Amino acid sequence: MLMSELIIKKRDGGKLTAEEIKFIVDGYTAGDIPDYQVSAFLMAVFFKGLDREETLQLTMAMRDSGDTLDLSGISGVKADKHSTGGVGDTTSLVLVPMLASLGVKMAKMSGRGLGHTGGTLDKLESFPGFQTGIPHEKFMENVEKVGMVIAGQTADLDPADKKLYALRDVTGTVNSIPLIVSSIMSKKLAAGADIIVLDVKCGKGSFMKTPEDAHELAAEMVEVGKLAGKKTIAVVTDMDQPLGNAVGNALEVKEAIATLKGESAGDLLELCLTLGGCVLKAAGMAETMDEARERLLGTIQDGSALEKLKEFVAAQGGDPRSVEDVSLLPAAPVCRELRAAESGYVQAVDALGIGMICLKLGGGRATKDSTVDLSVGAVMGKRVGDSVQTGDVLATIYSSDEAHAGAAREELLRCFTIGPDAPEKTVFIKEIVE
Amino acid sequence: MLMSELIIKKRDGGKLTAEEIKFIVDGYTAGDIPDYQVSAFLMAVFFKGLDREETLQLTMAMRDSGDTLDLSGISGVKADKHSTGGVGDTTSLVLVPMLASLGVKMAKMSGRGLGHTGGTLDKLESFPGFQTGIPHEKFMENVEKVGMVIAGQTADLDPADKKLYALRDVTGTVNSIPLIVSSIMSKKLAAGADIIVLDVKCGKGSFMKTPEDAHELAAEMVEVGKLAGKKTIAVVTDMDQPLGNAVGNALEVKEAIATLKGESAGDLLELCLTLGGCVLKAAGMAETMDEARERLLGTIQDGSALEKLKEFVAAQGGDPRSVEDVSLLPAAPVCRELRAAESGYVQAVDALGIGMICLKLGGGRATKDSTVDLSVGAVMGKRVGDSVQTGDVLATIYSSDEAHAGAAREELLRCFTIGPDAPEKTVFIKEIVE
Repeated sequence: MLMSELIIKKRDGGKLTAEEIKFIVDGYTAGDIPDYQVSAFLMAVFFKGLDREETLQLTMAMRDSGDTLDLSGISGVKADKHSTGGVGDTTSLVLVPMLASLGVKMAKMSGRGLGHTGGTLDKLESFPGFQTGIPHEKFMENVEKVGMVIAGQTADLDPADKKLYALRDVTGTVNSIPLIVSSIMSKKLAAGADIIVLDVKCGKGSFMKTPEDAHELAAEMVEVGKLAGKKTIAVVTDMDQPLGNAVGNALEVKEAIATLKGESAGDLLELCLTLGGCVLKAAGMAETMDEARERLLGTIQDGSALEKLKEFVAAQGGDPRSVEDVSLLPAAPVCRELRAAESGYVQAVDALGIGMICLKLGGGRATKDSTVDLSVGAVMGKRVGDSVQTGDVLATIYSSDEAHAGAAREELLRCFTIGPDAPEKTVFIKEIVE
Repeated sequence: MLMSELIIKKRDGGKLTAEEIKFIVDGYTAGDIPDYQVSAFLMAVFFKGLDREETLQLTMAMRDSGDTLDLSGISGVKADKHSTGGVGDTTSLVLVPMLASLGVKMAKMSGRGLGHTGGTLDKLESFPGFQTGIPHEKFMENVEKVGMVIAGQTADLDPADKKLYALRDVTGTVNSIPLIVSSIMSKKLAAGADIIVLDVKCGKGSFMKTPEDAHELAAEMVEVGKLAGKKTIAVVTDMDQPLGNAVGNALEVKEAIATLKGESAGDLLELCLTLGGCVLKAAGMAETMDEARERLLGTIQDGSALEKLKEFVAAQGGDPRSVEDVSLLPAAPVCRELRAAESGYVQAVDALGIGMICLKLGGGRATKDSTVDLSVGAVMGKRVGDSVQTGDVLATIYSSDEAHAGAAREELLRCFTIGPDAPEKTVFIKEIVE
């Protein structure tokens, strides 16, 4: 088999066989096929696509390119959750303890933030002493005993995806649905859960700008997951504004804790109830979504989800007191309010813009090697649709110094669009694909 | 400027500026932009194309990527000729001496054969002692004194094309008209002639399979050449069957000599008269094509073209006696005739197939490092449209041994399609684009 001929086959709209796709993935992972042939192939895929069978074969070949996690020895239902990446999205820190407190085993491998999107591992490191890298035996022990683990991806999980993603990132081939599907699903399949719930973001702050694109991505992931033998459900959710009010690592952890304490509601909680409901239904632990939501809300009301978070933090070396007493979490020295200069309604909040401001404040990574200031960021005081009076707090900025805070204020003001009339109400949960 | 952003711009159908194109070409030539980004860019160009302005800018940036040949010190009209590559095409060995004998200065840089297409440099090495690599001073002196030079491309001429062509060859991006145009025209422009005549092959034995594709390639090259300030003319010619009867290095040299002696006519001579006519008209040395053809035929009739070939061979270290006495040229030890098993008319002759047979006989290069047996090949006894009686010689095979000759016979038989009726007459010179 010649890689140059496979490039031409795809370029001319041909359908690749399972053997051909495996040849490409294995050859690239092993270093036998050079980057320059793979990048030309990826661009041909960008233009000509992959059909469902090809996408499935690509996903399976990538899954099998390295180690896979065998959870068969763990008792009970094993579930996993993935988000396509948004701003102010701390779903994992709320959803995973809720599900774990109900007995669903959650063995989650997460990533670090890059660019305007945050990463769960960074957020978790806000807990003093927390370890994101834990040995395999400890990982499996914690899944069984605590019921939840959130850790960094093991080194040899899906090495094909690591190479392919790094190449796509610099060759204009990120934004291709079959390539996104195979990247996400190969990792999820390698991570070994029985139930996979996917949060597909849709809107200005995400890759998928339209509900149609988001639906296509969701539907392809669900079909590939099912064909690979997993219960797979996707929820398409709005990402025109940040999901929670907080954007920034420790700030988001505080919002997650407030949510688990029942002190904060809104889109973040709504998303967790929806994703969690999908998992409980798929696991046979609830008949209807309403019943599932009741059970999930119960874990907040009886404090069991918060208790599970504490137990989890402690099990991974963190200080569990910081869950009760958030003053133990990193805090920024400078705190400045941004007040409205006019009255009206919030028409739009630029999620991407706020993500970029958090990055500039030092709360994100411009490159893979940047260090992150966990304390900085912004907390929105108003969301889309809220009425605003002159002088109301639109947002609060948390910064390491006055200079950064001042620059962020200017930019943050441009992220809020205020108009005289209430905007049309947008639907937050757009679709459940199963 | 970021290469990844330029890839995305082209991928999304944007038009690149001259600065952006120069950034890509210079960055790639210097090694600052990696192969994997350029191959993704080339695939985006394959799908989205380049408009004429972009193609011109790419051509100029490639031309300027290395040394250019300055022929301004040479007296008289300087012309150059290029063919897009065919089988049995020994045009240069006939046309260049004809034009040089009329006073047109021909400073021609040629290549080696690869795959099924022959290379002029290999053919010239059939002359005992002939040197294809000559120092710059000697090159310029010969152009001025002899009026013609055919030599290998100097090392630093158009280095961007060398890198880009090697990359295109293995990434499925050869067959793109703007990339073919820029590759050919950048080298021709770097070679410094005032008049450029292009032979665009069309048919089964060439890259351009249809007259429409060949026209588009011809028209783009002519326009780019003109915009770069050169008189540029393209001739679209048939390549459904080999151009001459001979395929194989020394065999083609013998056919070229026979043509210059006035002993052989046909498509090869017709092509030389047409291409040469275009040059003479562009140079103001003839008013009409008829007048130009008369002058060119005169160089055969009075022996001046043959004399020029001898002078040229001697000037580059070859034995001029081998021009008069072709028994001094390499000759294969085994010679076998292929005879027709049925009567009828030759419907088709597979040029690509005959090229591949010559390659297998040892007369071509499977890879860049193959050594070439100059003596082997095949000579057609019948051409498309000829009537055939059972037992007529369809072709003669020249081989190093019986085993190769036997294998070639089987394959060669399949290259001739014989049918009961005379086939429709094809037009050999399809179009002149100027």
